[in-house]
Amino acid sequence: MKLAVLGVGAVGRSVVELAGEYGHTVTAVADSESAAIDPDGVDPEAVLARKEREGTVGDAAPADALTAASDVLVEATPTTLGDAEPGFSHVRAALEADRHVVLANKGPVAERYDDVRDLERDSAGSVLFEATVGGAIPVLSAIRDFGPDHITAARGVLNGTANFVLSRMAAEGLGYEHVLAEAQDLGVAEADPTFDVDGTDAALKCVILANVLGDGGHSLADAEVRGIRDIPGSALELAAEDGQTVRLIGEATPEGVRVGPRLIPQNGTLAVTGTRNIVQLETTNAGRLNISGRGAGGPETATAVLSDVSRLR
Amino acid sequence: MKLAVLGVGAVGRSVVELAGEYGHTVTAVADSESAAIDPDGVDPEAVLARKEREGTVGDAAPADALTAASDVLVEATPTTLGDAEPGFSHVRAALEADRHVVLANKGPVAERYDDVRDLERDSAGSVLFEATVGGAIPVLSAIRDFGPDHITAARGVLNGTANFVLSRMAAEGLGYEHVLAEAQDLGVAEADPTFDVDGTDAALKCVILANVLGDGGHSLADAEVRGIRDIPGSALELAAEDGQTVRLIGEATPEGVRVGPRLIPQNGTLAVTGTRNIVQLETTNAGRLNISGRGAGGPETATAVLSDVSRLR
Repeated sequence: MKLAVLGVGAVGRSVVELAGEYGHTVTAVADSESAAIDPDGVDPEAVLARKEREGTVGDAAPADALTAASDVLVEATPTTLGDAEPGFSHVRAALEADRHVVLANKGPVAERYDDVRDLERDSAGSVLFEATVGGAIPVLSAIRDFGPDHITAARGVLNGTANFVLSRMAAEGLGYEHVLAEAQDLGVAEADPTFDVDGTDAALKCVILANVLGDGGHSLADAEVRGIRDIPGSALELAAEDGQTVRLIGEATPEGVRVGPRLIPQNGTLAVTGTRNIVQLETTNAGRLNISGRGAGGPETATAVLSDVSRLR
Repeated sequence: MKLAVLGVGAVGRSVVELAGEYGHTVTAVADSESAAIDPDGVDPEAVLARKEREGTVGDAAPADALTAASDVLVEATPTTLGDAEPGFSHVRAALEADRHVVLANKGPVAERYDDVRDLERDSAGSVLFEATVGGAIPVLSAIRDFGPDHITAARGVLNGTANFVLSRMAAEGLGYEHVLAEAQDLGVAEADPTFDVDGTDAALKCVILANVLGDGGHSLADAEVRGIRDIPGSALELAAEDGQTVRLIGEATPEGVRVGPRLIPQNGTLAVTGTRNIVQLETTNAGRLNISGRGAGGPETATAVLSDVSRLR
C-alpha cells in the first residue's frame, strides 16, 4: 500500500522507517511545517536525516501530503482534545477523497468517534486505529475477534509512565516527586507529564475502548478520571503489608469510562511493572482474556499502525 | 454463514449452541454414526437433546453432512495423529467442493500442514484454525497481526491439565498420582490423561505454531517432547526454596518444537495457575507480547471457531 504519513514524532518516524519491511511504500511524509512527496516512494533515511539536521522533511507544504497519491493516510500528529483538530480535518480530507485512514492520534476516535464513523459511512475508505490503545498490544483486534457484542468490559493498565512511577514507588519506597524526576531523567516521563499522571492519556484510551464496545457515544468529557499525583508513599507501604499494591486502572464498558488508582493484589495479573501495559477483556462465552506488552514506543506503536495497514489490503 | 459441523464433542456441541448468537446458521451436524441436515438450519436444541437421549443427532448418514449445502465445514472430530484421518479427508472433501474449513481438530494442521496448504491453494475455500491452539486465546490472530515473519518464537503453557497438576503439586505439596486422581475427579483430567501429561497435546499445538511461523514443514515426529509424569514433589519443593516453580513449557520457532518441564520464576508471567494457558510471542519490532486466558472448554473453544467463521465472511 502507498502511505501518506502525517506527523514525524516517535511513531511517525518509525512508520517511515519500518513501512518497507512490511511491504508498504511511503509516498508522502509531513511534519507541521514541511512535506516530502514522491509518488515512487520517498527515501526514508534521507527524509529522517533531513528532519534531524534541518528540522524539516522536505520542500513541499504540509497540506500537499494530504493530496499526494496514496492509499492510506497514517495520522500520527499529536493527540488533541475537544475538537481533535487538526487531526480530525486530516481524517475528513482523506475519507472525502475515498482513502483509508490509520490513526495513531487518539483525538479523532476519543473525542469525535461518531463524526468519524459518519464520514466513514459516506466514504469508500475505512478507518482503523489499533495504535491508539496500548501500543503494540493488539487489543482492538482481539475485540474484533470476539465481537464487541461479546465483550462486557475492558480494563487494565494503559499508561506506562504512571505505571512506572507507581511500581518504582512501591518497589523502592520512594516518594512521587522523586520517582517522577527519575522517570524524566530516564526519558520515561515527559517534561510535562500532566497527561500521563493525571490519567488523561489512560482515559482517552478507555474512551476509545468504550466507543468500540458500545458503538460510539463517548468522549473524554463523560469519563470519570483521577490521577496518581496525590498518592503518598505511605499508601503503597500500607497496601504492601496486605499483599496489595496500587495501579492506575482504566475501565471501559459500553456504558462509560472510569480511570483512577486502585488497590490490586501484588502478584495479581494486573500488577505489571515498569512501563508495561496490560488489558483484560471480559467475554460472554470465553471468560477473561489478558494481553500484556509494550504499550508505547515508536517501533512498538508503528507495528500496530502497519498491522492496520496490512488489514486494509 | 451456513455451517456443517462434524463432531459433537464439547466443542462441536458449543458451536451448534452458539452459532446463532454470532449470526450463523448450522445446516448440518454429524457425529460418527448419524447426521441431522436441514438447508434452513437445524434446531440446535432438538439435535443436542436427541444426541443426549439416543446417542445420534439425526436420521441421515454422517457422510451426508459433507455434501449438505453449507459455506463452511467446521471440523471438530477428535484429533488423530499420523495421517490425521478421518479429519484430513473431511478437509479435502470440503476444499475440493470449494468450501471453507474451520478446524478445531489439531490433526490436519499439526501432522499434514503442507498437504492442507496444497489443497487450499487449488480451492476457492480457505482453511482457518484458531481453535486448535490455546482455546479462547487469539494467538494465531495475534501472529497474523504482527506478521509471521516478524515473530521469532512462541512459547508458553498450552495444556491446562498438566498445568493444573503442576500448580496443585507446587501449592499443596502433594505427589503427582494424588493430584492427577483429584484432577480426574474434578473432570479437569480425562480417564486416560496420556496426551496431556506426556506433552503430546502441548506439542501438537506448538507444531501448529511452528508451521504458521515457518510456513510448514513440521509434524509431531520432529518435536522434542518430555512430559510431567516423572516429576517428584521434591523437585517442586526444591524449586520453591529458590523462588522458582515448574511448568510444562512448549516452545515453537520457525525451525522446530521443544516441549518439557522447565524451571520458571514463581511470580513470573509464565507461572499461570490452574487450567489457564498463556502464550508469549517474541516480536522483532515490538518486544514481547503475553496473552493468557482459557485454553480449553467447549464454549471457549467454540468462540475461536466462530471468530474464524466471521473472518471468512
